[in-house]
Amino acid sequence: MNLSDLCHPNQLRELSVPQLARLAQQIRQKHLETVAATGGHLGPGLGVVELTLGLYKTLDLDRDRVVWDVGHQAYPHKMLTGRYANFHTLRQKDGIAGYLKRAENPFDCWGAGHASTSISAALGMALARDFQGLNRKVVAVIGDGALTGGMALEALNHAGHLAKTNLMVILNDNEMSISENVGGLSLYLNRLRTDPALRQLRSNLESQLFNFPLLGSTFSPEFERFKDSLKYMTMTRSKAGVIFEELGFTYLGPIDGHNLSDLIETFEFAHNLTGPVFVHVITVKGKGYEVAERNQVTYHAQNAFDLTTGKAKPSSKPTPPAYTSVFASTLLKLAEQNEKIVGITAAMPTGTGLDKFKERFADRYFDVGIAEQHAVTMAAGLAAEGMRPVAAIYSTFLQRAFDQIVHDVAIQDLPVFFCLDRAGVVGEDGPTHHGVFDLAYLRQIPGMVVMAPKDEAELQRMLVTGVQYTKGPIAVRYPRGAGVGAPLMAEGWEAVPVGKAEVLRTGDDLLIVAIGSMVHPSLQAAALLSEHGIAATVVNARFAKPLDTELILPLARRIARVVTVEEGCRTGGFGSAVLEALMDAGLAVPTLRIGIDDRFVTHASRSQLLEMLGLTPTGIAQTIQQSLNTQPAAQPQP
Amino acid sequence: MNLSDLCHPNQLRELSVPQLARLAQQIRQKHLETVAATGGHLGPGLGVVELTLGLYKTLDLDRDRVVWDVGHQAYPHKMLTGRYANFHTLRQKDGIAGYLKRAENPFDCWGAGHASTSISAALGMALARDFQGLNRKVVAVIGDGALTGGMALEALNHAGHLAKTNLMVILNDNEMSISENVGGLSLYLNRLRTDPALRQLRSNLESQLFNFPLLGSTFSPEFERFKDSLKYMTMTRSKAGVIFEELGFTYLGPIDGHNLSDLIETFEFAHNLTGPVFVHVITVKGKGYEVAERNQVTYHAQNAFDLTTGKAKPSSKPTPPAYTSVFASTLLKLAEQNEKIVGITAAMPTGTGLDKFKERFADRYFDVGIAEQHAVTMAAGLAAEGMRPVAAIYSTFLQRAFDQIVHDVAIQDLPVFFCLDRAGVVGEDGPTHHGVFDLAYLRQIPGMVVMAPKDEAELQRMLVTGVQYTKGPIAVRYPRGAGVGAPLMAEGWEAVPVGKAEVLRTGDDLLIVAIGSMVHPSLQAAALLSEHGIAATVVNARFAKPLDTELILPLARRIARVVTVEEGCRTGGFGSAVLEALMDAGLAVPTLRIGIDDRFVTHASRSQLLEMLGLTPTGIAQTIQQSLNTQPAAQPQP
Repeated sequence: MNLSDLCHPNQLRELSVPQLARLAQQIRQKHLETVAATGGHLGPGLGVVELTLGLYKTLDLDRDRVVWDVGHQAYPHKMLTGRYANFHTLRQKDGIAGYLKRAENPFDCWGAGHASTSISAALGMALARDFQGLNRKVVAVIGDGALTGGMALEALNHAGHLAKTNLMVILNDNEMSISENVGGLSLYLNRLRTDPALRQLRSNLESQLFNFPLLGSTFSPEFERFKDSLKYMTMTRSKAGVIFEELGFTYLGPIDGHNLSDLIETFEFAHNLTGPVFVHVITVKGKGYEVAERNQVTYHAQNAFDLTTGKAKPSSKPTPPAYTSVFASTLLKLAEQNEKIVGITAAMPTGTGLDKFKERFADRYFDVGIAEQHAVTMAAGLAAEGMRPVAAIYSTFLQRAFDQIVHDVAIQDLPVFFCLDRAGVVGEDGPTHHGVFDLAYLRQIPGMVVMAPKDEAELQRMLVTGVQYTKGPIAVRYPRGAGVGAPLMAEGWEAVPVGKAEVLRTGDDLLIVAIGSMVHPSLQAAALLSEHGIAATVVNARFAKPLDTELILPLARRIARVVTVEEGCRTGGFGSAVLEALMDAGLAVPTLRIGIDDRFVTHASRSQLLEMLGLTPTGIAQTIQQSLNTQPAAQPQP
Repeated sequence: MNLSDLCHPNQLRELSVPQLARLAQQIRQKHLETVAATGGHLGPGLGVVELTLGLYKTLDLDRDRVVWDVGHQAYPHKMLTGRYANFHTLRQKDGIAGYLKRAENPFDCWGAGHASTSISAALGMALARDFQGLNRKVVAVIGDGALTGGMALEALNHAGHLAKTNLMVILNDNEMSISENVGGLSLYLNRLRTDPALRQLRSNLESQLFNFPLLGSTFSPEFERFKDSLKYMTMTRSKAGVIFEELGFTYLGPIDGHNLSDLIETFEFAHNLTGPVFVHVITVKGKGYEVAERNQVTYHAQNAFDLTTGKAKPSSKPTPPAYTSVFASTLLKLAEQNEKIVGITAAMPTGTGLDKFKERFADRYFDVGIAEQHAVTMAAGLAAEGMRPVAAIYSTFLQRAFDQIVHDVAIQDLPVFFCLDRAGVVGEDGPTHHGVFDLAYLRQIPGMVVMAPKDEAELQRMLVTGVQYTKGPIAVRYPRGAGVGAPLMAEGWEAVPVGKAEVLRTGDDLLIVAIGSMVHPSLQAAALLSEHGIAATVVNARFAKPLDTELILPLARRIARVVTVEEGCRTGGFGSAVLEALMDAGLAVPTLRIGIDDRFVTHASRSQLLEMLGLTPTGIAQTIQQSLNTQPAAQPQP
């Protein structure tokens, strides 16, 4: 059978191991070709080809549930569940999503772009099954990186306690999260993986075990004895899996994640156990593509590249440097001048640009794993003792630490500097990754300072503001991708004064107050409007909090018609901050808030999304004109 | 030395064990007398009297740092750090806070009302010490309940990895969180506690160990051998602490938390080890007060009570039932009619009222431990498979699961019903516990429904709305304490239609739109205003989202002066939702938003706080009148 002929994943149940191996080859080929063309996650999917095939051979997917932790490891799943023909549309507008999505396919029983959620979700599903008296297997597949996330540990702790609830957790252990793993747990898994005595022991025991017939729902007494002996050997001779056993799981493994026969046999065996089962599978990230196997960090996710060389395609790469790299190089300079600066990332050294900081200041750099809550509170601890922690966390992932920002940082007025990369729409990664809520969730926190630069040069200045500010927490948010080409300085930046906006253009018909990535598009929109005889003042707000009311209110009073523009949610966002300030000052002037409406934004390229959302110069100008047409002109306020 | 003569905690270093024991007695006495009079946390503090004394004898608190996880176990610490004389003002307005507070006392190096933060904070402090080349001990004291929180596990995982960073984690293991503990980890700790062979072994080893001189910073070879042999015995014979050892900690214990000599010797020993050390101390919650020892859940925290009998004082108890008990009894009835309803709590069965649910429907009830993130995503998993999960979580604690609500529930449109008790100001527990952000952080999430009842009868109806609603997530928030005395129905409640507000009073001068607990005070304020000739319409909004614009906008257009009233933060809250709706409809009418200003609210009784915040009928009426005096009358809009 060819992959293209597969209509339903249950057809895998009828295939032999050699037939599955052939499919594995085809999946890899398609996977590589597609990601080379479209960009996307490469290593994770290639690592779980056999795991997916082996697992699905042992399941009935019309009935059973597989929860993939972070959908980026589920490209093979997508190809096996009716999306092979359209797989070339991966991550493109109107095409197949880069993560799983309940609305996309009936076999996507769970969607996830953030890590560490799978065990909780699967446990909920397993409990629902038992309430409803159904017969259904529920499996969570989680990476060893995701296992460092607190909520995965909470779920393990809870699931282990429910001895009567059948649940299989498969650890896809590739020794990596997006970057290298950190933490005691990771070292522990490494010991399990690399103990040769253990692996031999397992292998012997398993071959004994699997010589017994496995079918049927009850076990022979022989089986029970063997199972016990397996556990006994585990506990006493090698400590393998003792953590998971102590938490209440039956531990099986480690097994070779690229050996289909071993996988199928182990899964079959595990399906017949009672209670929570933990199957430890060792995989190689990027398996089957040598370039990716050799460089796992780079090939975790990639832009389009040449399949033969593995090199990124010479593209129409944006000339201006990306915000990320401006952040990275500027922070480096600042850290040279200020030895109190400490860089903190939650498993995203490359994505945030902190990898450069690590190279230069290894001892002032911390990657805490996929653990945003811990990252933020640890930063607060550092700040309490006089250091200047810089927590570089994507906007969407900082949502994980909302309570820590409130409870550990803000209530105690601790000067933690939050640097939120990927704020706004991120593009192809879609709804789970857009950073559109930060202006709203951060500005509601008392004592917080929230800034956003209009360009990469202003980011440099705001980084100075951030590291100099000592009264409490301060955050800067900036978008994914290239800056606007503003001239950069190598050093000697002047801090942007906290709470100070600037006027970039003047005009008497309209006051546009924009923030961050929307300042330049708003300026261009003002130019377009001027062609239609509408003269706009444009203010670069810089701060969502504290808002520069000294500058904005007199302008609003005089011009008496306000437009706010932000790349963030309209509900409770920057525009609402302006509204609140106007009304608190008794200025009931018509105000149009342009931003992202109250719904989740799909995936597409960042520029396509900005176009769809009307957040381009033309879009902004059109929205303003429509609003002017439907609303009567306002009168200046006394 | 008497407790009243103690000026500085370092004086404890000079005291003998019998002298410390005498202080222990005095601390217990004062602790009991105070909490019996003021109410507060009883069991936690009584359990750590010796732990605190023993630890402080081995520290130099001018230099060293102790981070107490959740300050409610730190009443003995407060008495030992200059607050004995004022201890009777505990939790009262302008008195000593019920939790630790950096601003209150130099020895409060960390504040916490939410659990599981201490290891992260202490690790940050330990790293700051090393950066600065200081010589300082850093100790985190964490309960076994708090250890089930994901961020504590994230921190353990990270700290265990930092072999060169000296950090002591003391597990205050009393076998309880606020309620009984749950989870595999708790069962594991129980096995460590109760293994008699282990305890004997420990005891023998320790007596050997402690016969060696402990002073000085380097170890004798004998010591190193003994340490190794201790570890060896641990690992091979009893598995004690193997989880913590595997994570990279040196594990010591379990030791008797009420034996001062053992505590002091173990702490001294531990201080001289290198790297992360985990000291497992067994304590009895409520130790020394028999009534509390016997009933640990009830005496975790208490209202004022009679010290002899332990019974609550016959007080001016509010006649109307509390919102919590209305929630509990109503949910019970609904669950009888709908077998899909599942109740979920994060370690708060009594506080949320779900204990009643547990009694009646043990199999449809889950206490997941102090693990709000897992609770929410597990609920989402249940909802994905057709169940009706009701997640009963305090407003302040749900902040922990903000990302899970966005990413796992809302993006997937899953019908999880969030019931947020303790919304608004909670009173004596203070800034860490006030639930003032929920309206703002929930309403910014696309697809979310956010309701708040005006009284306990409307809560009953909203619970029906919540369990019937299937389009996506829905939340109801209600305050701490008694309802307003609205007549309750035993059953047969009619659902409040989603998004429907109601007009409670009419008048042409002013439109007051209030929500939840502020509806009745606003009605009373309207009555006061009418005495001054101001006729107000009062709307019970019921929904912060979706806002009933059909009802509100025409009224706002006609009356042209709007006041919003909420018991929540003004920044981004309910009032901003009204502002946004008005402006989106082109209604630039003067709008006064009454709520909680942009700062953290201190502790005091709930009624004192409402008074201070101007959220009483008089306060609301006064604020409105002031605003009318300073702003010109508005013109009705066309």
